[in-house]
Amino acid sequence: MPRVLVSENIRSLAARFEETRKLSETLVGSLSDADATIQSMEDASPAKWHLAHTTWFWETFLLRDHVKSYRLFNEKYPYLFNSYYNSEGERIGRSTRGILSRPTLEEILIWRAHVNEEILCLLDKLEDTYLVHLGIAHEQQHQELLLTDLKHAFFHSPLGPRIFRNRLKNTIQIEPGWYEHRGGLTVVGHDGDHFAFDNEGPCHQVLIEPFGLSKKLVTNREWDQFIKDGGYQKPNLWLSDGWDWVCTNSITAPLYWSDNQSFTLGGWQTRDPDHPVTHISYYEADAFATWAGFRLPTEFEWEVISKDHVASGGNQLDLSCSPHPVGSDTLFGDCWQFTRSAYLPYPRYLPAEGAVGEYNGKFMSGQFVLKGSSCVTVPGHSRSSYRNFFYPHQRWQFTGLRLAKDL
Amino acid sequence: MPRVLVSENIRSLAARFEETRKLSETLVGSLSDADATIQSMEDASPAKWHLAHTTWFWETFLLRDHVKSYRLFNEKYPYLFNSYYNSEGERIGRSTRGILSRPTLEEILIWRAHVNEEILCLLDKLEDTYLVHLGIAHEQQHQELLLTDLKHAFFHSPLGPRIFRNRLKNTIQIEPGWYEHRGGLTVVGHDGDHFAFDNEGPCHQVLIEPFGLSKKLVTNREWDQFIKDGGYQKPNLWLSDGWDWVCTNSITAPLYWSDNQSFTLGGWQTRDPDHPVTHISYYEADAFATWAGFRLPTEFEWEVISKDHVASGGNQLDLSCSPHPVGSDTLFGDCWQFTRSAYLPYPRYLPAEGAVGEYNGKFMSGQFVLKGSSCVTVPGHSRSSYRNFFYPHQRWQFTGLRLAKDL
Amino acid sequence: MPRVLVSENIRSLAARFEETRKLSETLVGSLSDADATIQSMEDASPAKWHLAHTTWFWETFLLRDHVKSYRLFNEKYPYLFNSYYNSEGERIGRSTRGILSRPTLEEILIWRAHVNEEILCLLDKLEDTYLVHLGIAHEQQHQELLLTDLKHAFFHSPLGPRIFRNRLKNTIQIEPGWYEHRGGLTVVGHDGDHFAFDNEGPCHQVLIEPFGLSKKLVTNREWDQFIKDGGYQKPNLWLSDGWDWVCTNSITAPLYWSDNQSFTLGGWQTRDPDHPVTHISYYEADAFATWAGFRLPTEFEWEVISKDHVASGGNQLDLSCSPHPVGSDTLFGDCWQFTRSAYLPYPRYLPAEGAVGEYNGKFMSGQFVLKGSSCVTVPGHSRSSYRNFFYPHQRWQFTGLRLAKDL
Amino acid sequence: MPRVLVSENIRSLAARFEETRKLSETLVGSLSDADATIQSMEDASPAKWHLAHTTWFWETFLLRDHVKSYRLFNEKYPYLFNSYYNSEGERIGRSTRGILSRPTLEEILIWRAHVNEEILCLLDKLEDTYLVHLGIAHEQQHQELLLTDLKHAFFHSPLGPRIFRNRLKNTIQIEPGWYEHRGGLTVVGHDGDHFAFDNEGPCHQVLIEPFGLSKKLVTNREWDQFIKDGGYQKPNLWLSDGWDWVCTNSITAPLYWSDNQSFTLGGWQTRDPDHPVTHISYYEADAFATWAGFRLPTEFEWEVISKDHVASGGNQLDLSCSPHPVGSDTLFGDCWQFTRSAYLPYPRYLPAEGAVGEYNGKFMSGQFVLKGSSCVTVPGHSRSSYRNFFYPHQRWQFTGLRLAKDL
Repeated sequence: MPRVLVSENIRSLAARFEETRKLSETLVGSLSDADATIQSMEDASPAKWHLAHTTWFWETFLLRDHVKSYRLFNEKYPYLFNSYYNSEGERIGRSTRGILSRPTLEEILIWRAHVNEEILCLLDKLEDTYLVHLGIAHEQQHQELLLTDLKHAFFHSPLGPRIFRNRLKNTIQIEPGWYEHRGGLTVVGHDGDHFAFDNEGPCHQVLIEPFGLSKKLVTNREWDQFIKDGGYQKPNLWLSDGWDWVCTNSITAPLYWSDNQSFTLGGWQTRDPDHPVTHISYYEADAFATWAGFRLPTEFEWEVISKDHVASGGNQLDLSCSPHPVGSDTLFGDCWQFTRSAYLPYPRYLPAEGAVGEYNGKFMSGQFVLKGSSCVTVPGHSRSSYRNFFYPHQRWQFTGLRLAKDL
Repeated sequence: MPRVLVSENIRSLAARFEETRKLSETLVGSLSDADATIQSMEDASPAKWHLAHTTWFWETFLLRDHVKSYRLFNEKYPYLFNSYYNSEGERIGRSTRGILSRPTLEEILIWRAHVNEEILCLLDKLEDTYLVHLGIAHEQQHQELLLTDLKHAFFHSPLGPRIFRNRLKNTIQIEPGWYEHRGGLTVVGHDGDHFAFDNEGPCHQVLIEPFGLSKKLVTNREWDQFIKDGGYQKPNLWLSDGWDWVCTNSITAPLYWSDNQSFTLGGWQTRDPDHPVTHISYYEADAFATWAGFRLPTEFEWEVISKDHVASGGNQLDLSCSPHPVGSDTLFGDCWQFTRSAYLPYPRYLPAEGAVGEYNGKFMSGQFVLKGSSCVTVPGHSRSSYRNFFYPHQRWQFTGLRLAKDL
Repeated sequence: MPRVLVSENIRSLAARFEETRKLSETLVGSLSDADATIQSMEDASPAKWHLAHTTWFWETFLLRDHVKSYRLFNEKYPYLFNSYYNSEGERIGRSTRGILSRPTLEEILIWRAHVNEEILCLLDKLEDTYLVHLGIAHEQQHQELLLTDLKHAFFHSPLGPRIFRNRLKNTIQIEPGWYEHRGGLTVVGHDGDHFAFDNEGPCHQVLIEPFGLSKKLVTNREWDQFIKDGGYQKPNLWLSDGWDWVCTNSITAPLYWSDNQSFTLGGWQTRDPDHPVTHISYYEADAFATWAGFRLPTEFEWEVISKDHVASGGNQLDLSCSPHPVGSDTLFGDCWQFTRSAYLPYPRYLPAEGAVGEYNGKFMSGQFVLKGSSCVTVPGHSRSSYRNFFYPHQRWQFTGLRLAKDL
Repeated sequence: MPRVLVSENIRSLAARFEETRKLSETLVGSLSDADATIQSMEDASPAKWHLAHTTWFWETFLLRDHVKSYRLFNEKYPYLFNSYYNSEGERIGRSTRGILSRPTLEEILIWRAHVNEEILCLLDKLEDTYLVHLGIAHEQQHQELLLTDLKHAFFHSPLGPRIFRNRLKNTIQIEPGWYEHRGGLTVVGHDGDHFAFDNEGPCHQVLIEPFGLSKKLVTNREWDQFIKDGGYQKPNLWLSDGWDWVCTNSITAPLYWSDNQSFTLGGWQTRDPDHPVTHISYYEADAFATWAGFRLPTEFEWEVISKDHVASGGNQLDLSCSPHPVGSDTLFGDCWQFTRSAYLPYPRYLPAEGAVGEYNGKFMSGQFVLKGSSCVTVPGHSRSSYRNFFYPHQRWQFTGLRLAKDL
């Protein structure tokens, strides 16, 4: 996996490393040790666990593997904080992360500081900085998960605590309309010497048919119409698995809706009809598109349009407000957008050797690709070729829907 | 849905109708009423139910919808024998099909005869014969399911009954080697005036990279090597969901293996190492390919090679022997072959209007495409553009594996 | 366990044996092989299985153990038809009894005839006839289960088949009133040289307080009042486990109720308000008693009153009508009656040695004692000391309720 | 339910109130907010929840119901901290108590202080102090649960934290032998003007047969012999439900055993063979007794012997050491002792009116009575007539076994 990344000098990389590590801690600034300990479902992890797991990643793949003299900070931590890397040995059951009152948040912060220092020493000596880029991208992913997991936990608390106390951003009104593309052979996937995950490549050609992609995300107002029209009661709008999911779980609205309120990172708020709808499953997105007479885009349709958009733009993580989708005139930000593309390997894709090869490739069954980024994505993290992926029933991420149509 | 099918005259169609209906009954020739009643898992249905459901299909979509004066044979049968057509109303739970001791096998055969007669009367008057072709194809699918469901039930009976009493076909030795293709733009999907399911179209162009497709299916001998090499114990060979499936279900071999024996439609038999391996899940197929250093083909790679093969050839349903995969020098027959393509709509795909529109489209999430046909497929049923689909954990069909590689 | 049973000569015993064996076959007289094969829940068994299991009991504990030269009719049958005797080795999973289309009903009847003949030969030579009495009692229990299991299966069939075609017995009006007892030391449990199960002894003294026992079973009319008064909606009437059961299973009425109809062994019938309510769980019985301001009797209270009643009297199995609770002026018949006594061992109780010791003793946790007998109990089977037992949520037996009160 | 409790003056009662409330807080003295938040299974509750629930009990049944001007400290707390009192309205799901990071431990301590003050004001004015006695007894029960729940959570933490840091008490060697009783009529149940739970009465006569009760609890050494003799592999030693439990959960030893170590409130410790075995289920206790050729005592046998023992004696809660069973020459202390008596109402038992009537009566199905007290019971809490109760599979309490035999 010789991925030379010539584009960033070590100083800049070190600064980004420090900034990233610091952001993780900023995000938990208002949390108590107990807030950082709770786990509300198997899919979600405690905030503390995210802080620790990302640190385990640095300690394992950088320090342990590249610093001969390095000794683990605590020999039990790999068992506690490995997520799913089978090559790295046994670990506690995913659903029991929420009983880890020890180590404390403070102890984890001390560990973090220790690892940070060691990484900064190592940086100058590294020949290949790929793993540093990977570690930063990895930690940024967990920053997003930390916030969505915490939102899920706080939603289930009858006290409905707020993670952030400042107000939401102002709503941005987007004119309806379509980005149109006349189809043909086009190049997709990552190329070049900037960092990307292995699942974004190899870069290759695909053939696309003429299509249109909506300029705006589906809004709460439109979703309300879907509900009022009986969208959740009509089996013929739904995929078969989707209809089972609706019936089994008595689904009648997006996650976090309650009457005319929604639970946000800033607590319970009156729902703005002009905001993009969010926290929907693939099944819901697909049913809505069927109801509306449109369809979901493929990942390649989205990607080809996105090349005219600035990947760090739009409504992405900005702590001056409580993050929430408010509308955006770019393809990026607000919500991750479901595509109808299954999450599968690109032609000639090969996962990396060793444990980091477990990062992406082994999840290539049963999931769908989401494109874009969300209001809790760190700007600079995503890009046109970025492939996020979730199971079709999952909806605790900031997921949304941008319609497409055939031309 | 204007699907003009000019290629077959009514006489030929009527003959195929009668032949198809008769075959269903031939298949249950050795079964008692009780044999035809049992259900061994939710995925499988009783033999009797298959006989009845296919009859319901004819009665509903042809007689009820096209013969003004027609009155249902029994008003309760739609509730009993509708499979999954939400547009056609309520139905009994899928997992309780096995308590239908009534109606009896004999009563169902009487219903069948009645419906057959009515359909033959109707045939001359039909303007559009699409639904007749669909009904025949539908019944052929259920003939295959009837046999695989029965195999599953009889496997679980400690007495291990035989469905067929004659011997297996002789093993055919296939030379290893690769079909090679240099890639490029190619047309896939169904076109023309022959019958095909809606999910096989629209016909469209795709871009393919140079690849090789194995001339032979993976054999029991090769699978034994995989097992001996610890294939079922090495998480890094497996997709993440696959490894969970292996651990949860304590999987250590293909379905129906026991020591050096396998359960077949002809009862327990010593396993021939030269036979194609069968009754494997997508997870197992993928893990084997990873272990072998190859990969699964895409559905389009398979399709483009298959155009040089006769779709009705190879080891397909032939009641002169107990059907079982024995090897074949064509892409068709023996086993359905997993592809790495998710089962998704083709560009501009639209399901048919009304209840028959539920036939294929609503299953387009979470499943994988299989190509080819099997030793229990009626010759003439499958074709190059045919898309079979199952969930990645399912393996009670005659599923097998043909490796592919990049060139 | 020297159980001398002097009271019955061999001729009479042989006659009872033949009569009992014949009755089992009479009960399935109207069933097809398929009817006799189906299983509608794990608690229930196929009719065919009951016929076979009782035969296995005779073959195993009488023929195999007492006839030196005896060879098993079929060596696979013990695996198929052992119910729960761990000492007798492995057996198929309880929930998969419903896939046994083989052996056929006819084959089982042949096996039955063979075993009957051998048993009759053996009878003259047996020194201790205890096991013959046990085998008869065992088969009588399975006759009752066969009917209640079949009722459960046919209830779930949308065609609602009838097991018996003749009409129900006439309703018997019972005057309300109380049997009163002034309390004191009293002897309970089985004594003497007649057959009884081991769990009915040893006979011993208990101290009883003054109490009243209702002369009539609670009726459908009274149960309707309970429902109309919101009985199923008021948690405070219910045991904690009972309330969970009500909520989890959305219970709103006794089993087999649908509007003003009930499913009976004679098919769907308009429910007679004067019939005893039946197919209720312990939880329901207890909640009703609380609502009514009374309580369930203890097993000893019931037993002491029953000594003035003829155990073979009342509405017990009588095939001249479709069996159903219709009212009775004796403590026996109609419905098994829940007591508030947990099913536990009597002082100095010891289970029999060997496999037959698994008959009763190992079920002594979590269940409640029911007294009396039902409309499908063979007259002569039950007695005052008889202890039937079921879990508090089970209600597919003919269970009913007789109220008690403190004096 | 006018239960005049003349035996204790208000001053003494107030002192006991303060002492009890203080002890709850002492028990969590070493816990962080996060430690007090975690929940390791549905049966267990967070430490913080115990502190809050007991406070809710005082606030609801004393302050709200008896102080006209009282206003709830926080209107959302009843929803959070009601346990199972249906009369008191809705509450959060039992299994989600572990996501309550808010209110914080500190906020709960402030609430506690507020309620304590109000209760002390109220005490002088109360005519009937029954609810105060009940509140103290209730809080003492939760003190025991708090410790056993915490032990369960910390056991599942790979770091195996210690709740107490001091050493275990010295082992006390008990001579084997039997308390013998010649049987006859005897009075059981609570009588007199001291506080007792409603389920301990009414006091009544029972008839007992001659029996012996072991002078010592079964020890780890004896349990080791049971294991070595294959106790967990022999189905015939087990109740049917017990054997299912063993197989389903792969049980091979008491809870908290690992090789020659046991997890204790003082962390992982080498297991002393002379300590009483603890953390066993009813099923295990019963199987051991069967293996040993003895039986479990009835609750009345235990009670009649216990009248010669000081109920506050033996190894009960004493914070000078890490609490653990170490042996005792009295019937009280060390471990709660399983009896073979189902937890059922005594003759003429009536639950209290209103919500406190839900305290005991509604649990009277499916559970067994345990007698005595344990190493984490507050001395003075238990008595001869005390009836603890758990389901037969539960074993996270300090449960143990004292054998009995017939004479």
